[in-house]
Amino acid sequence: MAVLPPGVSQRTLDAALAEWRSAIGSEWVFTSDEDIYGYRDSYSILWGTDEERIPSAALAPASVEQVQQAVRIANKHKVPIYPVSTGRNLSYGGPSPNVRGTVVLDLKRMNRILKVDDTRNFCLVEPGVTYFDLYNYIQERGLKVMIDLPDPGWGSPVGNSLDHGVGYTWGPFRDHFVSHCAMEVVLPNGELLRTGMGGMSNADTWQDYKYGTGPSTDGLFGQGNFGVVTKMGFWMMPMPEAYLRGMVYAPKFADVIALVKTVNFLEDQGIIGMPNYGSPARTAALPFNKPADPDLLALMANGYPSVEQVDAYVAKKGVPAWSVQLQFYGPRKTVEANWEYAQAKMREAIPGATFDGVYRTDLPVPKERLDEVVLRHMGIPALEIFNIVSRNESHGENPPDGHNNCVAIVPRTGESLMTFSKAVIEGMRAVGDMRPWSPFTTPATWHPRTFLCGPSVFTQRNDPESNARNKRLYESLVDTYAKYGWVDYRCTHAFQDRVVSKYDFNNHALMRFHELLKDAVDPNGIISPGRYGIYPRSMRRTRA
Amino acid sequence: MAVLPPGVSQRTLDAALAEWRSAIGSEWVFTSDEDIYGYRDSYSILWGTDEERIPSAALAPASVEQVQQAVRIANKHKVPIYPVSTGRNLSYGGPSPNVRGTVVLDLKRMNRILKVDDTRNFCLVEPGVTYFDLYNYIQERGLKVMIDLPDPGWGSPVGNSLDHGVGYTWGPFRDHFVSHCAMEVVLPNGELLRTGMGGMSNADTWQDYKYGTGPSTDGLFGQGNFGVVTKMGFWMMPMPEAYLRGMVYAPKFADVIALVKTVNFLEDQGIIGMPNYGSPARTAALPFNKPADPDLLALMANGYPSVEQVDAYVAKKGVPAWSVQLQFYGPRKTVEANWEYAQAKMREAIPGATFDGVYRTDLPVPKERLDEVVLRHMGIPALEIFNIVSRNESHGENPPDGHNNCVAIVPRTGESLMTFSKAVIEGMRAVGDMRPWSPFTTPATWHPRTFLCGPSVFTQRNDPESNARNKRLYESLVDTYAKYGWVDYRCTHAFQDRVVSKYDFNNHALMRFHELLKDAVDPNGIISPGRYGIYPRSMRRTRA
Repeated sequence: MAVLPPGVSQRTLDAALAEWRSAIGSEWVFTSDEDIYGYRDSYSILWGTDEERIPSAALAPASVEQVQQAVRIANKHKVPIYPVSTGRNLSYGGPSPNVRGTVVLDLKRMNRILKVDDTRNFCLVEPGVTYFDLYNYIQERGLKVMIDLPDPGWGSPVGNSLDHGVGYTWGPFRDHFVSHCAMEVVLPNGELLRTGMGGMSNADTWQDYKYGTGPSTDGLFGQGNFGVVTKMGFWMMPMPEAYLRGMVYAPKFADVIALVKTVNFLEDQGIIGMPNYGSPARTAALPFNKPADPDLLALMANGYPSVEQVDAYVAKKGVPAWSVQLQFYGPRKTVEANWEYAQAKMREAIPGATFDGVYRTDLPVPKERLDEVVLRHMGIPALEIFNIVSRNESHGENPPDGHNNCVAIVPRTGESLMTFSKAVIEGMRAVGDMRPWSPFTTPATWHPRTFLCGPSVFTQRNDPESNARNKRLYESLVDTYAKYGWVDYRCTHAFQDRVVSKYDFNNHALMRFHELLKDAVDPNGIISPGRYGIYPRSMRRTRA
Repeated sequence: MAVLPPGVSQRTLDAALAEWRSAIGSEWVFTSDEDIYGYRDSYSILWGTDEERIPSAALAPASVEQVQQAVRIANKHKVPIYPVSTGRNLSYGGPSPNVRGTVVLDLKRMNRILKVDDTRNFCLVEPGVTYFDLYNYIQERGLKVMIDLPDPGWGSPVGNSLDHGVGYTWGPFRDHFVSHCAMEVVLPNGELLRTGMGGMSNADTWQDYKYGTGPSTDGLFGQGNFGVVTKMGFWMMPMPEAYLRGMVYAPKFADVIALVKTVNFLEDQGIIGMPNYGSPARTAALPFNKPADPDLLALMANGYPSVEQVDAYVAKKGVPAWSVQLQFYGPRKTVEANWEYAQAKMREAIPGATFDGVYRTDLPVPKERLDEVVLRHMGIPALEIFNIVSRNESHGENPPDGHNNCVAIVPRTGESLMTFSKAVIEGMRAVGDMRPWSPFTTPATWHPRTFLCGPSVFTQRNDPESNARNKRLYESLVDTYAKYGWVDYRCTHAFQDRVVSKYDFNNHALMRFHELLKDAVDPNGIISPGRYGIYPRSMRRTRA
């Protein structure tokens, strides 16, 4: 495949490749079709089209010094590079760059765990370290800290955090960018920057205090393209004594308003870990791997149903409209007291609230009980997530290869959940997607202060027509969300321009500010052009 | 006083003043000596010297639009301005600018509370809003949220957060920059920027989600000079049901190592609020308002004492070396369970640990019990802090007017506390300050993941010699801290250049990066020149 970065000749690319080979070793500079295949995004909705974000080459440096050299060479030849940590960011671009032809800078060889401290409760890691690596390191040494991790566990704490990724345990740790503490970054000119206390050579507080003295620039490097992050620290949770989970059920559709308020009250004072919302009514309406309930189809057939109509449906099905699984981490007596308190608060707020499914275990979870828990809720890396979404058994003979999550930032209220399904249906119907849908939207709660809502859109490498159709669907969802004030918190390359275009305040002041900074920090535009819609001046389209 | 900004002629200043008068009303443009007096820093160690950071004028716009106009006028005439929220940042510069002659942009008239939401638990406020204002607003409406606030309560949440200020309650809220959620900023060119979800005109998640989609630039505006912040959101804690506090005592000097580890373990899983460290041995050694204990003087007379010598001293005094007050917020049964658990953990870690001083109250604190609590620990604004430090009764007939806290970021370990006093004594003795000092350093724990340690240095407007001596002392402390890897997290104008010069990694890469950004965002250098050592190109000294 003859792919080149925009505005870069084969000759220029070859010159850069030659220098990279001499800087980091020719066995770590990849240009063959076979090698490049591994840097394609197997979840790409653009697979096999001219738009697919195929790299022209890939480099895998082994050290910070080699990264600096690689960046300097890129800058000299104005050849764009796209750093990836482990390239496992599936559904969000995987190992592929934003702009076709960009050279992937693969940091997987930089996989040292530099420090795990279980008295100050932090770690310092390189980008190639995976959650499995970190977990094994901690287990081998018997350190008393819990990891907060995303699914699947093969990803990188550094990469996940830099894409504003998320996890599953207690609020202060679930937002992986919030829980990071300071970075080391190779700037586009090859210079090494350490942020926060790392700015002081002899400070031993680099992973304790985020800011240093003066402004903080870490935010630029999350979902940004201002440098190559080569080290990051993360705050960790000391291993709690015990875990308790319990289910709460709310009978009626509008109970979700009081349910969410009560969960927020518990969450925001740290009483619970991640709440897992569910809807027994939705399970009845759209049973897994079976046809939709005919009563649901009738309910949704004549315009969007009223609250009363939905409640009549729920009553007929004889199940609660909503559920939430509450999780508690802490001392044994504390998790019991907190669960008791949560039930009391729920009873106050929701007439007819019911409870069951209480499960208790000491932490860390004893080996013989591991099959009773969701591993990622316990800070244990796993690949169990691949049972769901595009890889589950519901898809028949030609199952999808992947999915792109079209997940929007939605206010943390029951009202917004009651409206969200309406928007999804609008977005689907606008492109002729007539699949059955229910009024029961349940949010992801990875970010402790906001809801994330939205469906997965499937991708299929052997079916370009399906991809084209699903691309239109995704775009329609993005456009429809925006009418309601919602927008994706994160998305794959193919949709980033569209998503960030929704940030329209004061004629896109936020993007114009990002571009101003980009031009200053990376005048040759060599780091990750196009990432989250930020292009260097040379590639910048006129904003409509 | 004929004070002008550097490089600005009287004629240029007059032209700018004329435009400002027409933009915001002449009664809100202050130039008389009497008016300017109010914009001097009464805690300035440079008081009355040629170095004092006296402004040439002050402006008080009433709205965002007026701020934009004021900034555009400043930019047109290249006259620097220094925004202050309420100007109450005492010990850190108060209402005065960093560079003499800079015009103060006083935002106190912008004092609207735009939103307090006690189901999603946030507020949105303008810079002129004080903690008292916010508290009264919440009380009047019976909203069920707790404020985290600094001392004293007359300050501004916006101003405090932007100086990386801190509070007294539960970990996720004590760091006021961490707990902020998104901003509105007038950029140096007068353009209005909203960060995070504010970048989307119709989003209703501006105070729920920090980042938006793409990089985050909020960090630039904390301890920075990249724009004028005109609105900020803050996450708040729902009002907990109950409060419990209890004291822990550790007998020996080296027990501080286990004590700190145990407190960290409790703090980092959210079991406790702010731990208040103390030292009964220090109270015996250096009793308030009385001469130092002769045994202490003997202990410290022949070089820095060994752990054994300190323990012999502690044993002789018959008091515990250390104490920590633990505070618990939450449901009634939870705070009891957590206190019980904390005691068990302390007993495990510290042979001979003892406990007392248990106090319980429901929250909010009933009126009749307000004199039993430290108001700021309960989220209640107060001015009680003025009883301590420079304003207390220990100072005799010519008491100091103010103080400058020389407080360094120190690792959260007992070992660092055991070393810290040595450094302070070194720093004092280097400038001939021979005051008695003890080996018992107790940290401030405002930032939940780091210790802040260090003495207050006094200022006195009627005693320039004392100020000069204390300035040398402060500088000596900064230099001495730096040898140990410690540096001030925040400091008054007079010491900012020196403090940030300690960030020496890779030839001051962090400052060079700040300067690169400064030149891009504020090419005329009109916003707060010199703030935390960042000067515009025109004023930049050659770095030594």
